[in-house]
Amino acid sequence: MTGQTDHTQVPAGRNTISVDAMGGDAGPTVVVAGIAMSAKMNPDIRFILHGPIEQLTPLVAKKRVLDGRVEVRDARDVVTMDDKPSQVMRNGKGTSMWSTIESVKHGEAAGAVSCGNTGALMAVSMIRLRKLPGVNRPAIAILWPSSNPQGFNVMLDVGADVRADAQDLLQYALMGTSYTRNSMDIARPRVGLLNVGTEEHKGHAELKEAYALIAEHADRGSFEFVGFVEGSDIPGSTADVIVTDGFTGNVAIKTGEGTASLIRSTLRDAFQYSILSRLAALLALPSLTRLSKKIDPRRVNGGVFLGLNGTVVKSHGGADATGVSAAVKLAFRLAEQGFAEKLAARVASSVELTQDTPARDFARATTQKD
Amino acid sequence: MTGQTDHTQVPAGRNTISVDAMGGDAGPTVVVAGIAMSAKMNPDIRFILHGPIEQLTPLVAKKRVLDGRVEVRDARDVVTMDDKPSQVMRNGKGTSMWSTIESVKHGEAAGAVSCGNTGALMAVSMIRLRKLPGVNRPAIAILWPSSNPQGFNVMLDVGADVRADAQDLLQYALMGTSYTRNSMDIARPRVGLLNVGTEEHKGHAELKEAYALIAEHADRGSFEFVGFVEGSDIPGSTADVIVTDGFTGNVAIKTGEGTASLIRSTLRDAFQYSILSRLAALLALPSLTRLSKKIDPRRVNGGVFLGLNGTVVKSHGGADATGVSAAVKLAFRLAEQGFAEKLAARVASSVELTQDTPARDFARATTQKD
Repeated sequence: MTGQTDHTQVPAGRNTISVDAMGGDAGPTVVVAGIAMSAKMNPDIRFILHGPIEQLTPLVAKKRVLDGRVEVRDARDVVTMDDKPSQVMRNGKGTSMWSTIESVKHGEAAGAVSCGNTGALMAVSMIRLRKLPGVNRPAIAILWPSSNPQGFNVMLDVGADVRADAQDLLQYALMGTSYTRNSMDIARPRVGLLNVGTEEHKGHAELKEAYALIAEHADRGSFEFVGFVEGSDIPGSTADVIVTDGFTGNVAIKTGEGTASLIRSTLRDAFQYSILSRLAALLALPSLTRLSKKIDPRRVNGGVFLGLNGTVVKSHGGADATGVSAAVKLAFRLAEQGFAEKLAARVASSVELTQDTPARDFARATTQKD
Repeated sequence: MTGQTDHTQVPAGRNTISVDAMGGDAGPTVVVAGIAMSAKMNPDIRFILHGPIEQLTPLVAKKRVLDGRVEVRDARDVVTMDDKPSQVMRNGKGTSMWSTIESVKHGEAAGAVSCGNTGALMAVSMIRLRKLPGVNRPAIAILWPSSNPQGFNVMLDVGADVRADAQDLLQYALMGTSYTRNSMDIARPRVGLLNVGTEEHKGHAELKEAYALIAEHADRGSFEFVGFVEGSDIPGSTADVIVTDGFTGNVAIKTGEGTASLIRSTLRDAFQYSILSRLAALLALPSLTRLSKKIDPRRVNGGVFLGLNGTVVKSHGGADATGVSAAVKLAFRLAEQGFAEKLAARVASSVELTQDTPARDFARATTQKD
């Protein structure tokens, strides 16, 4: 497996994030720049950084802010974007990704961040961290810019599994509620189930089943169920949590990202059209910057894996330093709040709920706060 | 059924579009304004307009450009957005929507346009016009702004049916190819199959089956199959035709629309932030107008129903006059080109294709141009 090195400064506990230096499109330089940004903003944070030691040590040495705050953990292999999850599960023990998850498993770090191959990261996380008792399918949750007061909605699953049955969708509603409470200040999140229309008779049969199941558990799960929502509600203000299967969720976020990116490039072209429009662009710069900030995908970089024994944040493969830093911040924040433990308690209570235990047990199960 | 009135000026043939005046969010005034815009731009176009005669006649009389070019066909009932398709199929004979489709069925008009309830419009179209021989599930195709040279991609199905098996997806590829050839100047459209990743091992089993089937028919169907594409390719330049089931397609376009609308409102807010930014907005107006034009959903308003004996265009329920006019223009253009007949020929040839007729028959079947 991975060789341990540089034992002089082993950071441990809640303030340590395990980071996969490899697997992102831009290589380890950007990842190290990202953790340096995080280190600057947060004096308490420490890192275990995984990858080839001869590449990482000089990169870390160049950033004074990282001095004494990073342990480099040598891992020789790298999971590429083309590797199949099943291959990585069998032969991935020597990879930086595997090593990154191991640090969480062994309690050395409170959370993990990787820019690598999503499918492989989920596969390694599942076999090393294991699913929470009662969770059939873990999910990936993301924050999506929205017109809600909090500025974002939570959506899940966006690609952990292409399938989800009614029971899975209920779990997503409960896990999404818990994540929303821990990442935003919303006591009773509004949960919507993604469909092609808001009328109850629309959509697949399994969605109608999920509708009934989620509605039934809303009160005990401490969320408000707003029923079916549509694609336009993902960036809208109707719900705080959008629940869907990983196939639909993945297509939806990529369509949204693609549309935003088309608009950005069209806007750029429009402002470069003439000398006058270039002048206008100069004057409009503060306004355009405000727009960019609001819809900048880097600010919300990081899909959180929900339903595992441990916090794993998947950063975008094409993330720059700002993006990596945002993913690290998210992992740190969740670690600080003991989110993994709270989610486990919430899921445990929901398992009791869905097993139809007597009312007395329901009351006990749902008094746990998350 | 519908009573015929105003027989003095019955327009007929290829240049006549049958228009449902009712069922849009903004009522018949906007629809009449829309057809007046079309009439101004196109001196050859004529209309049969369906709805309550006492409402429509004064509206039409107010527009001089419509003088002698509109036959009002009295229909007393209106399909609302809440009506279930099954109800409309049973009890909808007196509605303006039903009457609109009847005009196409009886050959009085070359195409139909309605802003009404999509599910009901598809249901009425299916029972009155009937599916083309060999088509199991008709589809709704839309144009979506893209970074391709032609400025748009075709996507289908966006909501005719929530399900689609491999055979249906092949039909969508063939119908989408035909529609792309007739709405844009692309001889050999590139077809992509929507999935959660571009690797062949990803996605549902039925998608892998569809992949093989579409790949097999690419040459004979005169399209290029680019394989799996992702949500980001819908506004991208990888493919000209995006094939997917109606559930995924519907969620995707609504997510894209919602994202574009969030960006628009954020941009507006950004430019109203201060006096300086308002001044900048004034100077930037030409640039912003260029952006709006490029991504204006009204310019591509109109989902085309493919796979029926006749051309039906579904306009957005919230369309304004410009939107209605765009939908009418699309119906007229397709009618002018004899698209319905070309599509029927194309589907007939594909039925032969998929029935694995001998090579000699393939050659004959695919020599038909569309």
